[in-house]
Amino acid sequence: MWSVEDIEMMSRAIKLARKGLYTTRPNPCVGCVVTKAGQVIGEGFHIRAGGPHAEVYALAMASDNAKGATAYVTLEPCSHYGRTPPCAEALIKAGVARVVVAIEDPNPQVSGRGIKMLTDAGIQVDVGLLNVEAGDINPGFMKRMQSGLPKITIKLASSLDGKTALKNGVSKWITGSEARRDVQRLRARHCALVTGIETVLIDNPSLNVRHSELGVLAGEFAPSEIHQPLRVILDSRARLTKGFKLFSVNSPILLVSCTDYPLEEQTAWPEHVSHLKLPADDSGRVDLSHLFKHLGQSCNSVLVEAGATLAGSVIEHGHGDELVLYQAMKILGSAGRNLISLPGYEVMADIPAVELIDERKLGKDTRLTLKIRS
Amino acid sequence: MWSVEDIEMMSRAIKLARKGLYTTRPNPCVGCVVTKAGQVIGEGFHIRAGGPHAEVYALAMASDNAKGATAYVTLEPCSHYGRTPPCAEALIKAGVARVVVAIEDPNPQVSGRGIKMLTDAGIQVDVGLLNVEAGDINPGFMKRMQSGLPKITIKLASSLDGKTALKNGVSKWITGSEARRDVQRLRARHCALVTGIETVLIDNPSLNVRHSELGVLAGEFAPSEIHQPLRVILDSRARLTKGFKLFSVNSPILLVSCTDYPLEEQTAWPEHVSHLKLPADDSGRVDLSHLFKHLGQSCNSVLVEAGATLAGSVIEHGHGDELVLYQAMKILGSAGRNLISLPGYEVMADIPAVELIDERKLGKDTRLTLKIRS
Repeated sequence: MWSVEDIEMMSRAIKLARKGLYTTRPNPCVGCVVTKAGQVIGEGFHIRAGGPHAEVYALAMASDNAKGATAYVTLEPCSHYGRTPPCAEALIKAGVARVVVAIEDPNPQVSGRGIKMLTDAGIQVDVGLLNVEAGDINPGFMKRMQSGLPKITIKLASSLDGKTALKNGVSKWITGSEARRDVQRLRARHCALVTGIETVLIDNPSLNVRHSELGVLAGEFAPSEIHQPLRVILDSRARLTKGFKLFSVNSPILLVSCTDYPLEEQTAWPEHVSHLKLPADDSGRVDLSHLFKHLGQSCNSVLVEAGATLAGSVIEHGHGDELVLYQAMKILGSAGRNLISLPGYEVMADIPAVELIDERKLGKDTRLTLKIRS
Repeated sequence: MWSVEDIEMMSRAIKLARKGLYTTRPNPCVGCVVTKAGQVIGEGFHIRAGGPHAEVYALAMASDNAKGATAYVTLEPCSHYGRTPPCAEALIKAGVARVVVAIEDPNPQVSGRGIKMLTDAGIQVDVGLLNVEAGDINPGFMKRMQSGLPKITIKLASSLDGKTALKNGVSKWITGSEARRDVQRLRARHCALVTGIETVLIDNPSLNVRHSELGVLAGEFAPSEIHQPLRVILDSRARLTKGFKLFSVNSPILLVSCTDYPLEEQTAWPEHVSHLKLPADDSGRVDLSHLFKHLGQSCNSVLVEAGATLAGSVIEHGHGDELVLYQAMKILGSAGRNLISLPGYEVMADIPAVELIDERKLGKDTRLTLKIRS
């Protein structure tokens, strides 16, 4: 069914789509290539939410040549009027003869509609080319559209013996500067960061993406082009007070608690702070099911950067999709702080099931990416 | 000074030497290549202690052609009458014209004597070719000859979060079968295994090399050719009683305690069991300095296969040379057992200095080899 040319062009569209990795959210990354007689006559990718879709750029480049052409799109063209007119309509108007779609829209409410618009207009539509690869560009978007929940990644850093800090909490620095720059890029790819109040009280972090620490990425994007993830602080007992560093960075913060904050605190919050009250779980902490359901309304991907308790809770309750572990070639010893709090399992069969999907050296450290099976 | 041919031939001798890795101890691995007019006319390696040295094999193969030839030897030829006549004498008798030596004998009492015998006989001797590589074949022998102490390697296995077992001690199996076979080969390369009484009491291990579990190595060596390492049990309070599995395997055991065993225990020991009484350290445990000094009398290499306390003590007191960590892509959680007991360091500068020197995949597990700096 697929020609070598088809595969080549869709691969090109996928590569283009990836260019939006740091900027499109909460929209998915999409790439589009328009060809005629084996030649690329137009191509584009979605850059940011509110801006033109990939098809618009590619069709504009192809101009009148688009008539009778083939368009390769990594995701089913949209069929609705949003901030931009539907791309299916644009493809019809441009007069393309064939549209190759990698994957249908994962949102069950609109899935197939764009394809139907095209076929109704007499355009040949072929669906499914490189669908796995195309889905892998937008794992968070795919999950959210299908389940209403964001993709949840837990980021941890430890020594070889699984310690995150010395006994007294000293953790600067377990990993080296290359690994820490990679964490900045990881943050920049996520819609939201979740951390616990303990981390804020102890480390007083800014939890923002620092352009100067993005490494190679800093050259590709201006500081204003870098999305700051929503900073979510789980503070069940509403203990956070003004004056912590994170407040002074002007990007959205969501404080999540199970009780109300004192009025004098609320009035002291800058404009970029909002507050969400959620039920507590059995242990009195913010109920994670409610939290992730809430975040799933607007976030494709959530990065949990927290201590052993919260990280363990996310894993234990089956919320985690992926674990990114920065491992330093160091030994801190048994007195150090543990990496992940989990219950005292009695049998090996009960431990969380994880699978290594990527391993990379970052300076002297190793970054391990593991899929968590639920 | 060195020609391409020299380097090629010494590389060949080093490669030959490595063939003795599992069998020569306590002797070093040595290889020898004899050449004439660019052709290899003889070669050999030391197979086992008491058997012929590498030079003897190589000269025998070269036979009368050895006259006027060049001999490449990875280690300075011996000059003394041991279980075999001195190799320096054999080289002289054979009439070789030139001897290239990678490294001088590391034993300060004999170092240089073999070379002197050769030069006194009018043979051209060139020393130092690929000396680092040649030393790396016999790290334990080199260290022991220079310091009287064996090379000490700590073997550990843990999950990604640095746990060796669940809370209840269950550890079967954290690592997979490939990693466990690699441990068998690691044991087979060591002169002695050291473990603590707790490990024996809890796990009741045999602590021997099981030929059936050697993997690729099983095809190379018959069961009788595999050296069983001396099994050293640290049992400061003389708690070990007969009936444990390790006694039923017929290979040497050294029980090390700080007090005497009851007479009825001593009389129950099989012939392959010996006993050593050593002073206790401040914490009442076998003093490790004395232990390793004793083992250095006959062992080039010692593998410490122990729990967190003994492993930590070896590292903390600066005895460890290398750490071999088999890491499973699993998470056991904070309730699991710690990997290495070390004091509660206050500053990062105080943690043990380790450096990754090798990393390898073994099935789904990773084997990390780290050099411990003292």
